[in-house]
Amino acid sequence: MHYVGKELNEECAVFGIWGHEHAAQLTYYGLHSMQHRGQEGAGIAVTDGKHIYDHKGLGLVNDVFDHEKLEYLNNKGFAAIGHVRYSTQGGNSYANVQPLVFRSQKDSLSIAHNGNLVNAHKLKGELEERGSIFQTTSDTEVIAHLIKRDYSDNFLESLKHALSVIKGAYALAMLTEHQLIAALDPNGLRPLSLGRLGNAWVIASETCAFDLIGATFVRDVNPGEIIIIDNDGLRSEFFTNHAEPAICSMEYIYFSRPDSNIQGINVHAARKSLGRMLAQEAPVEADVVTGVPDSSISAAIGYAEATGIPYELGMIKNRYVGRTFIQPSQELREQGVKMKLSAVRAIVEGKRVVMVDDSIVRGTTSRRIVGMLRDAGATEVHVRISSPPITHPCFYGIDTSTSSELIASKHSVEEIRKEIGADSLVYLSVDGLMQAIGRDPALKNCGQCLACFTGKYPTEIYPDTVLPHEKELLV
Amino acid sequence: MHYVGKELNEECAVFGIWGHEHAAQLTYYGLHSMQHRGQEGAGIAVTDGKHIYDHKGLGLVNDVFDHEKLEYLNNKGFAAIGHVRYSTQGGNSYANVQPLVFRSQKDSLSIAHNGNLVNAHKLKGELEERGSIFQTTSDTEVIAHLIKRDYSDNFLESLKHALSVIKGAYALAMLTEHQLIAALDPNGLRPLSLGRLGNAWVIASETCAFDLIGATFVRDVNPGEIIIIDNDGLRSEFFTNHAEPAICSMEYIYFSRPDSNIQGINVHAARKSLGRMLAQEAPVEADVVTGVPDSSISAAIGYAEATGIPYELGMIKNRYVGRTFIQPSQELREQGVKMKLSAVRAIVEGKRVVMVDDSIVRGTTSRRIVGMLRDAGATEVHVRISSPPITHPCFYGIDTSTSSELIASKHSVEEIRKEIGADSLVYLSVDGLMQAIGRDPALKNCGQCLACFTGKYPTEIYPDTVLPHEKELLV
Amino acid sequence: MHYVGKELNEECAVFGIWGHEHAAQLTYYGLHSMQHRGQEGAGIAVTDGKHIYDHKGLGLVNDVFDHEKLEYLNNKGFAAIGHVRYSTQGGNSYANVQPLVFRSQKDSLSIAHNGNLVNAHKLKGELEERGSIFQTTSDTEVIAHLIKRDYSDNFLESLKHALSVIKGAYALAMLTEHQLIAALDPNGLRPLSLGRLGNAWVIASETCAFDLIGATFVRDVNPGEIIIIDNDGLRSEFFTNHAEPAICSMEYIYFSRPDSNIQGINVHAARKSLGRMLAQEAPVEADVVTGVPDSSISAAIGYAEATGIPYELGMIKNRYVGRTFIQPSQELREQGVKMKLSAVRAIVEGKRVVMVDDSIVRGTTSRRIVGMLRDAGATEVHVRISSPPITHPCFYGIDTSTSSELIASKHSVEEIRKEIGADSLVYLSVDGLMQAIGRDPALKNCGQCLACFTGKYPTEIYPDTVLPHEKELLV
Amino acid sequence: MHYVGKELNEECAVFGIWGHEHAAQLTYYGLHSMQHRGQEGAGIAVTDGKHIYDHKGLGLVNDVFDHEKLEYLNNKGFAAIGHVRYSTQGGNSYANVQPLVFRSQKDSLSIAHNGNLVNAHKLKGELEERGSIFQTTSDTEVIAHLIKRDYSDNFLESLKHALSVIKGAYALAMLTEHQLIAALDPNGLRPLSLGRLGNAWVIASETCAFDLIGATFVRDVNPGEIIIIDNDGLRSEFFTNHAEPAICSMEYIYFSRPDSNIQGINVHAARKSLGRMLAQEAPVEADVVTGVPDSSISAAIGYAEATGIPYELGMIKNRYVGRTFIQPSQELREQGVKMKLSAVRAIVEGKRVVMVDDSIVRGTTSRRIVGMLRDAGATEVHVRISSPPITHPCFYGIDTSTSSELIASKHSVEEIRKEIGADSLVYLSVDGLMQAIGRDPALKNCGQCLACFTGKYPTEIYPDTVLPHEKELLV
Repeated sequence: MHYVGKELNEECAVFGIWGHEHAAQLTYYGLHSMQHRGQEGAGIAVTDGKHIYDHKGLGLVNDVFDHEKLEYLNNKGFAAIGHVRYSTQGGNSYANVQPLVFRSQKDSLSIAHNGNLVNAHKLKGELEERGSIFQTTSDTEVIAHLIKRDYSDNFLESLKHALSVIKGAYALAMLTEHQLIAALDPNGLRPLSLGRLGNAWVIASETCAFDLIGATFVRDVNPGEIIIIDNDGLRSEFFTNHAEPAICSMEYIYFSRPDSNIQGINVHAARKSLGRMLAQEAPVEADVVTGVPDSSISAAIGYAEATGIPYELGMIKNRYVGRTFIQPSQELREQGVKMKLSAVRAIVEGKRVVMVDDSIVRGTTSRRIVGMLRDAGATEVHVRISSPPITHPCFYGIDTSTSSELIASKHSVEEIRKEIGADSLVYLSVDGLMQAIGRDPALKNCGQCLACFTGKYPTEIYPDTVLPHEKELLV
Repeated sequence: MHYVGKELNEECAVFGIWGHEHAAQLTYYGLHSMQHRGQEGAGIAVTDGKHIYDHKGLGLVNDVFDHEKLEYLNNKGFAAIGHVRYSTQGGNSYANVQPLVFRSQKDSLSIAHNGNLVNAHKLKGELEERGSIFQTTSDTEVIAHLIKRDYSDNFLESLKHALSVIKGAYALAMLTEHQLIAALDPNGLRPLSLGRLGNAWVIASETCAFDLIGATFVRDVNPGEIIIIDNDGLRSEFFTNHAEPAICSMEYIYFSRPDSNIQGINVHAARKSLGRMLAQEAPVEADVVTGVPDSSISAAIGYAEATGIPYELGMIKNRYVGRTFIQPSQELREQGVKMKLSAVRAIVEGKRVVMVDDSIVRGTTSRRIVGMLRDAGATEVHVRISSPPITHPCFYGIDTSTSSELIASKHSVEEIRKEIGADSLVYLSVDGLMQAIGRDPALKNCGQCLACFTGKYPTEIYPDTVLPHEKELLV
Repeated sequence: MHYVGKELNEECAVFGIWGHEHAAQLTYYGLHSMQHRGQEGAGIAVTDGKHIYDHKGLGLVNDVFDHEKLEYLNNKGFAAIGHVRYSTQGGNSYANVQPLVFRSQKDSLSIAHNGNLVNAHKLKGELEERGSIFQTTSDTEVIAHLIKRDYSDNFLESLKHALSVIKGAYALAMLTEHQLIAALDPNGLRPLSLGRLGNAWVIASETCAFDLIGATFVRDVNPGEIIIIDNDGLRSEFFTNHAEPAICSMEYIYFSRPDSNIQGINVHAARKSLGRMLAQEAPVEADVVTGVPDSSISAAIGYAEATGIPYELGMIKNRYVGRTFIQPSQELREQGVKMKLSAVRAIVEGKRVVMVDDSIVRGTTSRRIVGMLRDAGATEVHVRISSPPITHPCFYGIDTSTSSELIASKHSVEEIRKEIGADSLVYLSVDGLMQAIGRDPALKNCGQCLACFTGKYPTEIYPDTVLPHEKELLV
Repeated sequence: MHYVGKELNEECAVFGIWGHEHAAQLTYYGLHSMQHRGQEGAGIAVTDGKHIYDHKGLGLVNDVFDHEKLEYLNNKGFAAIGHVRYSTQGGNSYANVQPLVFRSQKDSLSIAHNGNLVNAHKLKGELEERGSIFQTTSDTEVIAHLIKRDYSDNFLESLKHALSVIKGAYALAMLTEHQLIAALDPNGLRPLSLGRLGNAWVIASETCAFDLIGATFVRDVNPGEIIIIDNDGLRSEFFTNHAEPAICSMEYIYFSRPDSNIQGINVHAARKSLGRMLAQEAPVEADVVTGVPDSSISAAIGYAEATGIPYELGMIKNRYVGRTFIQPSQELREQGVKMKLSAVRAIVEGKRVVMVDDSIVRGTTSRRIVGMLRDAGATEVHVRISSPPITHPCFYGIDTSTSSELIASKHSVEEIRKEIGADSLVYLSVDGLMQAIGRDPALKNCGQCLACFTGKYPTEIYPDTVLPHEKELLV
């Protein structure tokens, strides 16, 4: 759940609701509960059965919507979709804020998308050849064009065709004047769940959204499934016979909120289990266990419980760092002014510390934290990572940078240990990861995407596949 | 130049510059000088020859651009276009803020448009049939689709073809990575001028933009002309042989800044001339002449000069009414709390007042002003309007409401006089208007569009032509 | 009424109302109408007869008050005072925003003050010797201390004593839980008027505030008068037998709104009269007369009427320059980018121009305007100033800078003419000024303060008298 | 460290630094680290040895200071004090934002105060009798008046005298042009520590501020001590012989940041110890232990460690609830929309839950949380409070409401259990509290203020002592 200073960035969250008089408001709260998945932009589209109305903007959900704007949308419709988007650089990223809305004289379509396509660049080129024009740099616009291009007066057929053409990761929430549609890629790379709130249907990237609005979890959307919700109720179809579950491991390890469940497994429990497994694989003589807040706390508690070493609050995070916060100058930083994270001297001084973290990307943050613990008097710092080394880039919507920036793609664990200045460093094994999360061993990779650890991508990868952070530079 | 409380709303202004290291900044100042033409939104797109970068937003030019955003664009390019947009209602009008930018893998196109097409609805339907999808409700997107659809690797040919298909009013500023293009409809319904700033070329809706940035006026863009500016210089082409000048009369009467020149005629001078002509056509025994600020001041001074009745400041406008101003409640309004405009008792008390205004739309404002003058002690109020009665709606970008709301479309001058409570009411004649502005009598209607006074529209009008204020409701 | 780019700054405006259920709202509108007298800060204090409630802030009236804050105050009381304050520099000027509120366990006192004391520094020193502590740098706090120090259970006596001790300019609006008090210094240096709105009493620095809220002018407050308004009605007392009227001339010439009346004379009419007198004293052969907007327009029209030379809009002011406006860089300025004021080439090109302005302070603005007119093609520029040369600093609340900065204190008219680059320069004579405004010649200086033109100050001037703009540096 | 939805509110934090070129910036970061102690307002005063400059405002530290304002102050001085203030109601609370600055012609004094005086009302009345006038409702102004009133040209003597007169809780940071002064009341009710940063001296309410700016902890300020820091270095004096340490227990239990140390004891460690002691005093058969975030997490972990019951993340707090967050309507709330805190169904469903909280004030929050846990499927909810019942109001700066609102002042533990709907409820004993924190048993109450649990106040309580939240209503 931490988003400050981490080198991994999630792409987005989607939300949808059909059949509730407070559709827009509930979407607001639902998006709010998933704010950790994206802080750059937010948007809501609603329908009253005749038109689509929308409002979007840059910033957090409560920056984008004031009382008046939310009321406006709330009064407009009984169904809504929403989206939060992660932070990127760029002079004008507004156009990419979702839901994208496409309006025609016949009907309208709004789309919210979590994930990343691997053949978007190729498809876009082909569409442009055929006269399509694009106003955003997002994959989602490609999906809309594919649907509209082949519009055979049968929206569902067009959609199925479009989904059969696109490759990669996508959890989609779509809204027309007449339907709410959820769709998930054949690998189910991103989480997407279905819930019920009274007579209304709800879809959300994470189940924590259901809890917040008082909805009941019904089931996860299946890989390759399209769910269509309208006034006649809900029906499900599959657009492919080749679904092969491969949910992103990082959702458990790092991204999702600890109170969410993914495929029946609670994220906090999964993390604690990762910590226990790590303790089993890599015990160490030490005085205290501490976790890097916030996402590694659960794993640290698990590690502490399993080893019997007491869990302590060895680091603390500053909660009030807002958008307008004035960062310390380089000079002050060198003089020791810290932000975001402080080591707690009273806890670590004179102690052998186990520092549990969920991952190492470039290594710079880890080096800083190890240094901070030593400055605060730790006599030994043993780093334990509750996931395997990240050696390969992610093409499915996580901004792990290019492989050249991934420290584990070029360096051995021992080299990384030296680089970050730890007394010891152990990563969880891939087997340990699988076992800890308790996935079905009958499934390929136990149904989990391990590509960033193993390089085995569940989909084809196209030569011109574009990493998320490279999108802004594209046309 | 007044935009508060007036019932006529202009559509927009466009600006463009090629070949200046401060392209974005000069566009900012240029747009700023034309802010009276639109307060809803503003945007700038720049190019460095490789990419198009843009920033847009809702509000005034200096709401939309802060120092950082302007610097960002300024550092990005040597050429820019910009746009200001007039105020409409609607939950999400951001998508309509211009310049619109269309990005493809080959190249990009940004468009800023002042005017209104009369066959946009028809063209959009046809394009959608062929698979185009639209994200805005603006005509401008139709133009872009027409260009891109028929893209024969020859941008200029595609553009010419597109312009030959669209009907109505358009002054366009377009920017690609390689060219700045200005284009004007065959009637030249909206003003568009060409200027020079050092080695840079500048285009702008009004010449006041040239004055503000220190540029020199070169000439007006001609009806039916396309001007292409690139690193090889400037060249001009015509996309039609049927150009027939018909500049909007209202630009002289009401919209343009008094320091702008349209087709060689200064707007302030034109207005004074209208006032003089009005004095000639409709003199009256009175003690003072006063004008409704700001746009009628010039005409009032002309009227005063011609009649010898002294011009006085009989009404004053409050300058500090900002966006966040708290409007008086109905109760306070009834108790006499005024905003925007006050009558000056010391000037009008016990006097016979000539109140000069530039136009009457619905009549409600005029009635309020006449009442205010009487409340302040005027013994007689003689209303003189420096234009003919507005009897027909405008389809070319001025939001004059539907004809049913135009008081003069249903009522005689005497009925209007009673309605607004004046002692006498005289409008300028159409001949007087023509003569005062001194237009070339050889041209049809002296080269001016008089449609709102006469119902003679210079273009075809399609059955489904959409008035500007109806756009927001469309898909 | 112009406040941008002028070198003369007014201090403030005060407003008060007793006995109206919308006391705070009417104060808001009253202050708003006097916004030209101060843009730095604004505040309102109200009473419900038991407590004083207040809200203040930096910025314009509608920056400081949002709907919620105004409602809060409006619901709190039946009486209110308000204040707008002019713009100064300084890191923390909030403390100086008025009304100042002094709360004690017995009762409270809030004060709004327009003017400047000449013995504040001396009085403050004496009070500090006696244990008073100050939290602001404003004179107003001195007045409060004097009242409270000598509080003999008779507020009115304490007030009279305090007013007999302070010297200088002060138009005061004071509010306790039980009374609204207006007080004016023995010279009546600042304007202050009394009005009626239904059963409520109103006081305001300018009568335009009455017009805006629909109140009726009753009379001006007299020099040396205290007006006490409470539930028993209104009564008047004098705290001195030595009142000698000397209203600031600059109120007519420059500061006040043209629709205000000061001592029965309309400001616009006075200015026109100044222009006519100037025409009589200093005619010139020319083609057009133009005034520097906004405050010199009336004088220019007067000059034009008297000479028969047509009045034209030779310069235009940009209305949308807001707080966040990005000023052009020095480089762009040198390249000709203008702000605030543009010359209208079509009007002045090839013409002999009479440029009427109301005053010259440092001369820099005049030089810039003359240059601008020449750049726009004026063949001759004749400057006519509708007031005498400002040779002495003002100690009564107008920030005319120190005398060393006043160009006329060191230079002859001919030297100034050269400095500003005019073909001719004539100021109005002091006699002409008196005559034009039509003041009672029986009164000393016709009852007007002419100190800035003559150096004859109507009060003693103390060696340590502090100029307004020096206050921020003081303790 | 939680401030949302808790019924206990801390008053403030103070910070001071002497002898650093980045005095204002370091104060900004220091205040930021203590933001949990107050979110209503913030301010910084600096000195360059000649003047005091300050900036204050409503809101969080990074709302109040932008880059420009912080730079301004930073360039002004080598010494600074700062203050954050807790949230209150009221139309105009700006005047109460600290540091208060008192300027005289001789010198200036700025004061930042954490705590609450018990005889302020009495002293204020006496001062007013002697002619003092007050502009705020804060105790701090009383302190300033006392110092200034008796100013014998010896600031230190005046200060000592003033401190001998005031009663209650005060940790003061004061800044003149020549000195930085820290002072603590004779009971040391609020924490105040001294640190070193290079050659600069630093004082802060909590040691976490030292850690953040890289300063070293030197020692705690002693009860009854005045520390004077100037260019000659640091010296210490005592203004009383009757110091009797009684640090507020709630600082350990609830207010302070877990990474701060108070009198050598780490707050997190103290809380864990409280949890362990609670486990010893009140064990229970259960499946999971969970803590109410954020302040009860440490105690919950301690309880879990001591009982062997696993600690789990049974509740989660939403981090992004900002100032502008739109609260759910009553209707939505009743439909189950939650904010701030959610129960994690996957953790608590079917489980016997121990819910550890640090305190119960009115009981409403506890009832809501117990209900939430049951709704999420907890089969039993055992509430364990890591402090004794709060039975008496606090007069020393904690807003615990009046005793009538304290549930434990009127109800037995069994009654409270029923009220909050728990299966069992046990509070920590007073002895357990003392023992857990490990205070010196030789000191009265082990040197801790236990008044809110025992009613034994370490100072006299005056009949007219004012509770913090009643201040706003006072004059």
